Amino acid sequence: VRARRDERAWLSHIRGLWGRAGLAPGHGDDVALLPSAPYAVTTDFLAESRDFERGWAPWEAVGYKALAVNLSDLSASGARPAFFFLTLAWAEDLPDRAVERLLEGMHALSRREGCLLAGGDLSGCRSGLCISITAVGFQEEPPLLRSGGKPGDLLFVSGHLGGPRAALSAFRAGARLRRFDLRRAAEEPAVDLLDRFFRPPSQTALGQFLARSGACTACMDLSDGLAADLPRLCEASGCGAVVDAASLPLQPGMGRDACDVALAGGEEQVLLFAVRPEAAARLGEAPAVLFPVGTLTAERGVRVRRDGRTSPLRTKGFDHFSR
Amino acid sequence: VRARRDERAWLSHIRGLWGRAGLAPGHGDDVALLPSAPYAVTTDFLAESRDFERGWAPWEAVGYKALAVNLSDLSASGARPAFFFLTLAWAEDLPDRAVERLLEGMHALSRREGCLLAGGDLSGCRSGLCISITAVGFQEEPPLLRSGGKPGDLLFVSGHLGGPRAALSAFRAGARLRRFDLRRAAEEPAVDLLDRFFRPPSQTALGQFLARSGACTACMDLSDGLAADLPRLCEASGCGAVVDAASLPLQPGMGRDACDVALAGGEEQVLLFAVRPEAAARLGEAPAVLFPVGTLTAERGVRVRRDGRTSPLRTKGFDHFSR
Repeated sequence: VRARRDERAWLSHIRGLWGRAGLAPGHGDDVALLPSAPYAVTTDFLAESRDFERGWAPWEAVGYKALAVNLSDLSASGARPAFFFLTLAWAEDLPDRAVERLLEGMHALSRREGCLLAGGDLSGCRSGLCISITAVGFQEEPPLLRSGGKPGDLLFVSGHLGGPRAALSAFRAGARLRRFDLRRAAEEPAVDLLDRFFRPPSQTALGQFLARSGACTACMDLSDGLAADLPRLCEASGCGAVVDAASLPLQPGMGRDACDVALAGGEEQVLLFAVRPEAAARLGEAPAVLFPVGTLTAERGVRVRRDGRTSPLRTKGFDHFSR
Repeated sequence: VRARRDERAWLSHIRGLWGRAGLAPGHGDDVALLPSAPYAVTTDFLAESRDFERGWAPWEAVGYKALAVNLSDLSASGARPAFFFLTLAWAEDLPDRAVERLLEGMHALSRREGCLLAGGDLSGCRSGLCISITAVGFQEEPPLLRSGGKPGDLLFVSGHLGGPRAALSAFRAGARLRRFDLRRAAEEPAVDLLDRFFRPPSQTALGQFLARSGACTACMDLSDGLAADLPRLCEASGCGAVVDAASLPLQPGMGRDACDVALAGGEEQVLLFAVRPEAAARLGEAPAVLFPVGTLTAERGVRVRRDGRTSPLRTKGFDHFSR
């Protein structure tokens, strides 16, 4: 039996099939930029049994998260959410009320972020529930890409790491999010691990701030863990990085092995970005708490500094295919 | 047990939830138009067991159709395909080779239509295969909408009706499309019913022609059958219509009850459009064979003229929910 392709291998297959001339410029960033128009576009998919299980949380939480992961991608380029297109497919065993509640969760977030529903498609499918969203944002400032980082730039993340991965383990071990208060969801950030899994903090204001600041050289949405995503930013920027293990902002309350969980992570939906050192002071006015995690280097590859010693990153990131 | 909502009821529920202020302008047309930018966007979904069954046709055909239905929507506003975003989710029992072939079919069409791959998402799902595509088109001429029709306008369709519905019945009865030649697919229109089901004719040139012509007042993609789609065009245009049963362009080779199949139809992926009668002569230069099917009327509702007598349309269209 031939080994099956993982996500990375599929992406490389697809790039090979379409070739350079068949791919839009910017392919590989969190968003695609429409030529001669101030718009960024992104698309993201959530499926039952893959991204969540029925019963983990109220359906409002699932709808909220499906839109939130898309808005997080938009924030990575500094775009402001404008429209979204919703494709929803579900099997017959899902009650109407579940779909209604899912839509209510999505609606609460779209309203808060000023993101209009622009169209979509409804369908049945053989089993489970699939949600595909394409979000379009206004790109008012020059977009932040993954590719602008330079050696010496400081690396930051915009939130604690490891929490969503820990929540995933907790859900799999039987934990349940019992309540998802729509009114509160639109106003207060999530504190509880399980709540935060479905309700990542909005990065919209931060993304726009970074795009305006002139200090940020590269930016991406951290969705597959630092260990998977930082090498992508480095590769796009043509440099390497050193991560300082002691400075990783671990989700409060996590155990001693949390550093590896923080690196492996996944589904953080916070921003990872690089900043010119001489402009770092401008970050003082950022609308989010920022954590320095390391530095871009001329030497390729990602290394981790632990107890004064630097060694190559060995932790693997989060592959949505191999769960 | 409460009756479950059909597609129409869900769309109405969604419109109610988001409300006027939460919906982008143009909601309800085949495409959404991005403000102050020459772009039209559409999204369409194909799922195994709902839109096709494994084994009906080579996987190339499935990939081809998934993109074709989106390009058909773009053509309805007169947009030229520019980019597409692909979300693909499949269960573990689907071999890698099937996904590769599906991508090859999609690639052949995207290349022919000059539509670049701009991004997407790959994922697993519990069972089957789901394909969600969002396509972005250049909208160089003022867009054709559903809403501009006036009483007296002549109605046309741009292809034979009923074929895809007949093909669906044939597939369900055991017919199989054995071959899907990628090279031929990019060059020659489909003749065979089964082939045509997966390979609708491109409407791109026609859509652009109609948008440029100044003769066309309303246009839409015919995807749920004339019986379902014409009332939508009429409602958006604030008028009614009379369809001439004898003039319906039935798929050659269909039986005597074909008129109802042609009305009920579904998945035609040809254009239905209205033309000012004094400008109808301009259609002579259209890059497609056009068939007159009726007239828009001031009196609301859709009626059918058969053997000199006119009666309200009773045929139901194609509901992707109630198959």
